[in-house]
Amino acid sequence: MSTPSIEAVLAHIDANLETSRARWFDLLRIPSISAQPAHKADCRRAAAHMRDLLTGMGFEARLSETTGLPGVIATHHHAGGNAPRILFYGHYDVQPVDPVALWDADPFDPQLIDGPDGQRVVARGAVDDKGQVMMVLEAIRATLAVTGRLPVNLTVLLEGEEECGSPSLDAMLAAERSALAADFVLVADTNMWNRDTPAITTSLRGLAAVELKITGPNRDLHSGLFGGPALNPIRALTRILGELFDENGVIAIPGFYDAIAEIPADMLASWRATGFDEAAWLAAIGLRHASGEAGRSVLEQNWSRPTAEINGIFGGYQGAGSKTVIPAEAGAKLTFRLVPGQDPDRIIDGFKRFVQQRLLPDAHAHFEVFGASPGLMVPIDAPFVRAAREALAAEFGKPPVLAGCGASIPVVEAFERHLGLRTLLVGFGLDDDRIHSPNEKFEMQCFHRGMRAEARMLAAFGVAA
Amino acid sequence: MSTPSIEAVLAHIDANLETSRARWFDLLRIPSISAQPAHKADCRRAAAHMRDLLTGMGFEARLSETTGLPGVIATHHHAGGNAPRILFYGHYDVQPVDPVALWDADPFDPQLIDGPDGQRVVARGAVDDKGQVMMVLEAIRATLAVTGRLPVNLTVLLEGEEECGSPSLDAMLAAERSALAADFVLVADTNMWNRDTPAITTSLRGLAAVELKITGPNRDLHSGLFGGPALNPIRALTRILGELFDENGVIAIPGFYDAIAEIPADMLASWRATGFDEAAWLAAIGLRHASGEAGRSVLEQNWSRPTAEINGIFGGYQGAGSKTVIPAEAGAKLTFRLVPGQDPDRIIDGFKRFVQQRLLPDAHAHFEVFGASPGLMVPIDAPFVRAAREALAAEFGKPPVLAGCGASIPVVEAFERHLGLRTLLVGFGLDDDRIHSPNEKFEMQCFHRGMRAEARMLAAFGVAA
Repeated sequence: MSTPSIEAVLAHIDANLETSRARWFDLLRIPSISAQPAHKADCRRAAAHMRDLLTGMGFEARLSETTGLPGVIATHHHAGGNAPRILFYGHYDVQPVDPVALWDADPFDPQLIDGPDGQRVVARGAVDDKGQVMMVLEAIRATLAVTGRLPVNLTVLLEGEEECGSPSLDAMLAAERSALAADFVLVADTNMWNRDTPAITTSLRGLAAVELKITGPNRDLHSGLFGGPALNPIRALTRILGELFDENGVIAIPGFYDAIAEIPADMLASWRATGFDEAAWLAAIGLRHASGEAGRSVLEQNWSRPTAEINGIFGGYQGAGSKTVIPAEAGAKLTFRLVPGQDPDRIIDGFKRFVQQRLLPDAHAHFEVFGASPGLMVPIDAPFVRAAREALAAEFGKPPVLAGCGASIPVVEAFERHLGLRTLLVGFGLDDDRIHSPNEKFEMQCFHRGMRAEARMLAAFGVAA
Repeated sequence: MSTPSIEAVLAHIDANLETSRARWFDLLRIPSISAQPAHKADCRRAAAHMRDLLTGMGFEARLSETTGLPGVIATHHHAGGNAPRILFYGHYDVQPVDPVALWDADPFDPQLIDGPDGQRVVARGAVDDKGQVMMVLEAIRATLAVTGRLPVNLTVLLEGEEECGSPSLDAMLAAERSALAADFVLVADTNMWNRDTPAITTSLRGLAAVELKITGPNRDLHSGLFGGPALNPIRALTRILGELFDENGVIAIPGFYDAIAEIPADMLASWRATGFDEAAWLAAIGLRHASGEAGRSVLEQNWSRPTAEINGIFGGYQGAGSKTVIPAEAGAKLTFRLVPGQDPDRIIDGFKRFVQQRLLPDAHAHFEVFGASPGLMVPIDAPFVRAAREALAAEFGKPPVLAGCGASIPVVEAFERHLGLRTLLVGFGLDDDRIHSPNEKFEMQCFHRGMRAEARMLAAFGVAA
């Protein structure tokens, strides 16, 4: 990867760090809080700012209007028909700043502060996602300045509603389908493994959410007069849910683990090599023992294993003291985190069968499904992942951790669904960056090495084609 | 039982039915709603009315003041030192009348109406408990009128706060302990088995109420990021509660059924003889199958077997849709209905052990006990019960059903606790009397035969001494 031209690009980045920071600060000064209607004009100003900035870099840039806040779409397609097509996604909106009293300075007046690990920038959006977006764009700017070209055909998509649930994203992706055509999506909105170690998020769990309601008697009953012979729906419910896990924490729904893709050996090895501290992870949430599937590490469970969680349970009397009632119904809300290979609809069907087979006489089960999306995995041997791994290793002197993510990232699922695209998630935040909280920060060394790594990846993507 | 003098008393009752009804109506016209402060003066007026009525019958009568509404205590102790001492308990207060629009007439303007089974009296308190109290007092009045004496030493206690939770009863029983000394308590506030068949309630279930709370993580967690390895308290809770009953509906707490008194054979036979319609009982509450202990009838379960009921369950998200949360805690409220032989404290201890032995690692159980009272049984071979059984059989031409009551009746427990007295529960209401509801009624034939039966019992109690 390390060609003469990339060394020149990296030198340019190093030499122009202050001007890159100045452009980053310009964006941070725009209070583009998408969740608050009072900041609608600020959000549009941020969109226009980014459109103009990209135009200034040589992109063809425009706003993509929606029923809410516009997206910014910019293309730089001069690498030729055989070069890879990359869609870079980020967002220009930020979280609200409340409680503003907890900030040490105006959240939209970015501060450069000395910290224990060098300088840091403190502002709303410092890292999420304005900092990471500018980090990528500055790497592109340096590449253009030094080499006069980009090695890939690049499309930039900046969303303006990521922090308020992306209400317009689906419609925008559907409408801009041809404009956004690419070979893969690059997202810079995640974290490093730690200050010295980069990470690629290579798998995301899917989600199937369902509510189970059990009905029994035709009304609430007095438990003294009816208790015993009258079916209690809470008894019927707990009887079923009490069997959801076996003694080893394994989910007891038949077929639940069928067709789950095996985790590649080098990924498992990468996880073991992280030296992840399970005891510290548990202690932070007040626990001492790992729950879930016996014999599987916390990381393995969190990144690669499906789960069943009862997120809520309800029925009967919940107030102070005691009430002698047998309720007419009881229920629970469950979510299943899914991994690649599991079909969400089959998982829901399996749960329904599991419930039906355990119903006490006269108990009736009612289901409401709130959504089902599959787990996603980025093939770690795909050319663009391999290119990113090598570029990151070159910058940091060690390979990236190939991390899973236990949660879902809706935009990744949306790219898969609307555009058929896999997403490469590489970011340079740190776990203590206080995103969404007062005094959000992005460390200059992360911004700086992130720019260098992005430039290396950009070069590597071109070679990988 | 049927001596010449009892025949004369019964004839007197038959001949004076209308004047008895007139005195009953006088009491019904006083709106003594104890739960409503606006009716406080009416309640005191009802108390004074009863004191004066008893005085007029030859009792020494007085009010027993409390911090709330007074009781009426009246004694007629002229039967000699060897005669049995009976404490008759009733209450002069009534339920509220809302919604008053659903009444066919003023609830406190008693109506004599033709019904499918003869005349009925419609008013608030018609049966509960003014009608049943006047039925007993008119039987006493007739006995005094015909024989010039009572065969027992009788104390009357009329409470004024039964319909609002008896807040002053404990203190009054403690303060009036010596004035209320007796061999047993007679209560007329229950129902007949049906229009033609009397009933004695010979057992009441006790109650132990407890809340179980399970805690785990030190805060609510995101189930995508923590689900699996992080203990979910709802899982821990349902795992325990799901094992509370075995496949046959038997409560799985070790020792739960130890020391339960056997039901006497003639009582079981009496229950079988009722021809109780299980299918109709179940259909009325929307069910087709009897739950609870397999192989035991609904009546047997309801009247003589202990239960465990989960009256409420709670934890996590209960709103609309879905939320990916692992709650820091989850809980349930349970009541155990207890039968004679079961020690409430040991039952609670057994439940706590049952929970502790099933806790997942890192799950912590917290218990709050809301009260525990034992089950009560009236010995059906005790002289006063035998006397009542024979008197009822003489009046109705068939033996009374020896019924259990699945619920607790607090006043019975209070007599046991404060005065060491057993209670004989014999009443002449019907299940369709609409107590606590609009158009409450008491049928004239029930009032009439009830008076006759009470006179027979009174005579029998004297002989039984």
